[in-house]
Parts: sequence; structure tokens; C-alpha cells
Amino acid sequence: MGDIPESHPRRESLLSRQKLVDAASKGMLAESALIAHGRGEAFDYLLGEKTCDSARLAIMETAYRLLNSEKCVISVNGNTVALAGPQLIACAAVLGCPIEVNIYYRTPKRMEVLLSALMEQQQLALNLYPQIKNKITDVKILGGNPDGRIPNLEGPRANCHSDGILSADTILVPLEDGDRCEALIAMGKTVCVIDLNPLSRTAQMATVTIVDELTRCVPILLETLMQNSVKSLDWNNKENLENVIQEILRNFNK
Amino acid sequence: MGDIPESHPRRESLLSRQKLVDAASKGMLAESALIAHGRGEAFDYLLGEKTCDSARLAIMETAYRLLNSEKCVISVNGNTVALAGPQLIACAAVLGCPIEVNIYYRTPKRMEVLLSALMEQQQLALNLYPQIKNKITDVKILGGNPDGRIPNLEGPRANCHSDGILSADTILVPLEDGDRCEALIAMGKTVCVIDLNPLSRTAQMATVTIVDELTRCVPILLETLMQNSVKSLDWNNKENLENVIQEILRNFNK
Repeated sequence: MGDIPESHPRRESLLSRQKLVDAASKGMLAESALIAHGRGEAFDYLLGEKTCDSARLAIMETAYRLLNSEKCVISVNGNTVALAGPQLIACAAVLGCPIEVNIYYRTPKRMEVLLSALMEQQQLALNLYPQIKNKITDVKILGGNPDGRIPNLEGPRANCHSDGILSADTILVPLEDGDRCEALIAMGKTVCVIDLNPLSRTAQMATVTIVDELTRCVPILLETLMQNSVKSLDWNNKENLENVIQEILRNFNK
Repeated sequence: MGDIPESHPRRESLLSRQKLVDAASKGMLAESALIAHGRGEAFDYLLGEKTCDSARLAIMETAYRLLNSEKCVISVNGNTVALAGPQLIACAAVLGCPIEVNIYYRTPKRMEVLLSALMEQQQLALNLYPQIKNKITDVKILGGNPDGRIPNLEGPRANCHSDGILSADTILVPLEDGDRCEALIAMGKTVCVIDLNPLSRTAQMATVTIVDELTRCVPILLETLMQNSVKSLDWNNKENLENVIQEILRNFNK
């Protein structure tokens, strides 16, 4: 898509787009991944391409839930790895938890490409976050040899690791699909999601929904995890989503 | 993406998505075309995936403007050809006007693929619309040998035909980008667009904006053109767009 000038008002959005187009050409993404990204772009446009107050609260609550879990895991798909892999590896490092590739359209080839992209990103994260170097080295990257299944989900998208998604009580899943979010909730897990559509089934069903763009909110989450001083917010996810919807309606009326 | 069951509530949307994924694999689309489609999907979702009353009015006004033009043309890009090529060729047939491929990221290879796709679709249109068979055969497909330029536009996206876009007083451009819409309006043309985002620069700048999904509104436009009995509506495009926005806000509040 060519070079994006430093001064472009939508530079961040165009850089994310470029990352995804590159990831698609490397075979990291399912066919419909770029379309899903476009849907997110539209909702982000309606949010004014900024992290709203409700999203900040959801990030704090997510940090609280992850830090106070018995056992947590970060579940990633192709878009997530392409957009925020190194930052999520750093989150996993702070939490001392694994990161697990869990994709809807699972093929051996895509899994291989994603796992090796994450291993490269783990090296990159060492340079980006030297203060947590040892913890980054310790992050386990799961997904290659699933030995468990998410109940009530058909097909290969249910495959997961018994020492990852299957046994975690709390899971951070950026960009989850509705079916799997429902299945994870049905397993009794605390499910924290990042989803730009506040009306989606995933957003409505999750325990905590961060309605924000991935590359904008993950650095804030990482910083919040590092500070490790968050308190529970007596969380009402429906109410927080309603506040996001009101924010979108205000932007529309402008 | 696999088979889509006949009963799926979002079957039409998923069929469109499949058409675009197929078109991408044939080289018909620019890198960011699937992302653009996803943005449209999100706005269509907010519209309830149906043709709203304001869109019906805009379709009627578009039909009126095209039927009463001195010289009109239908400008198509990759997404448009993939989603509604045969139907737009039929519109061109009824209007007795050419259809011109005019794309943002113009490469010789993409132009070749798009022009040959349109020629195949012209054959397909003969079977779909036997009542206007002769007119369909007469539709000229332009774009391959541009001999003019749209003023005030940089790069190959400005290339056009002197017997097509350059000399037409009225142009139907589904899925136009903001820059080119502005340039066409600056040329004094009547510009009728199809755009799912009522807030986009294209939607705001066009003479008539149909805020609707392409595969849903083009058949309605075709039928309206065939009836050839529309009157002018004393058109206020800003007011019509405002009504669409109100429709979206009502859907959000549901």
C-alpha cells in the first residue's frame, strides 16, 4: 500500500492495515481475517479511533482479573499475532502465564507459521522490554501439540492444551469469535475479551469486554499489569458496554 | 470458508464475503479490498442488513438522474465487479451506456483480470436477462486503453477514457474513494455513489448517495431503470444521509 507519511491523520490505522496485509501474504491469516479487520476498523472509526473511558475501566478490570487468577492464559489468533504479538508476550511474561495459539480455521501450515512468528516475536520482545527479559524468556508458547478439547465446540477450533486454555480459570482472548466465547464461559472461566463491536455476541457474553483497538489497548494493559496495583471495580460488563454504545452515539451525533 | 447452509440468517452476507475471497485469489482485488469490504459489513450490520427507506429514495433518484442524463457511465472497481458485475452490465444495457474499469491501485495485471472477468460476466448477463439480450451485447467495456485523465488526481488512478468517464455528465460509481469523488464533483459531474458509510467523505460529497449493500441495491436499481417511470424527487442528499444516520441510531438503541 506504499509508504504512509508520518503526518497522516490515520497513520496508526494504516500501519495496522499494512501489518495485516503482510501477515496475510505470509500465510498467517485465514481467508476472512482481513474482512474481520475491516469490520473492526469501522467500529473504531465510530469510536473516534481513541481509547474511551469505558475501555480504560475494562483494561483495569482485565488486569485485576488476570493478576488475581489461579492460572491464566492468553489465547491468540492470526490477527492478534500480526498486530500485537510482542506486546502480548510481554503481558504473558509479567503474568508468568503461557500464550496459546488457538485459531478458528486451524491448518497445520497456518499453525506452523504462527508458532514460528511468535518465537521471532519473543526475541523481539526481549529487546523491547529489557526490564523483564528473564520473564520473557520463560513464556511458554503453546498451540502446536493440543491434548485437550473445549467442550461443546465442533471441529479443529476446539483443540487446546491441557496446561493452557483447558485448565486456566481466567483467559484473555483478543478478537474471539462468539461460539468459542460462549463455550469458554460455559466451562466456568473468567473470559476477558478485546472486541471493537460492543454489540457482538462475544462482547455481550464475555466477563470483561475491552471495546478498543488492539494495538492501542494492549500497551495500556501491559503497563497496568506491570504496575500491579489495580483493585477490583465491582464489575458490571453490561453497564460498561452500554456506556461504550452511548459514546458511539455521541460521536455519530457530532 | 466452506459451505453456507441455506437457512443461515446471514447467508447473503457470507455469500458476498465468499465472492470477494474468490476474487482476491484471482488477483482481481487490491491488497486492502477485503478490509474495505469488512468496513462495509460493519455499517451494513448497523443498518440491520436491509435496504432502508432512505436508500430506496436514493436508488429512485439515481435512476432518474441516469435516465435523464445526456451521457452517463458506470465506473467499476474490483470489489464491484466481484459482487455485482453482471447486474451492473445489465444496468448499463438499459441505459445504453458504457461500463468503465477505474481502479485506485491500477496495475496492468489487475486491469487485465478485471476486463476479462467483465467480458465473462457480459456472457452471464445474457442468460440472466434474456429480455435485454441485444442491449447487453452492445455494452462497451472500457478501461483498457485510457486516453484521458481526471484533473486534480495524482497517479494512475486518474486514468480514464475520453468516451467514458471523462465526457459523461452523470456517473454511477459504486464504492468510490473520497479523493476521486471530490475530483469528479469538481469536474461538474452528477455523481451517484453506493457507500455503506453515511459519514464517509464520498457519501457526504456525492450528488446522490445510496447507503446500501451493493448486491442488495443494484437489483432494485436495475428494476427501477427497466420500469423507466421515475420522477425527480427534489433531491436533498444531506437530508437523506441524516435520515440514514437516524436509522442507524435507532438500530443501535434496539
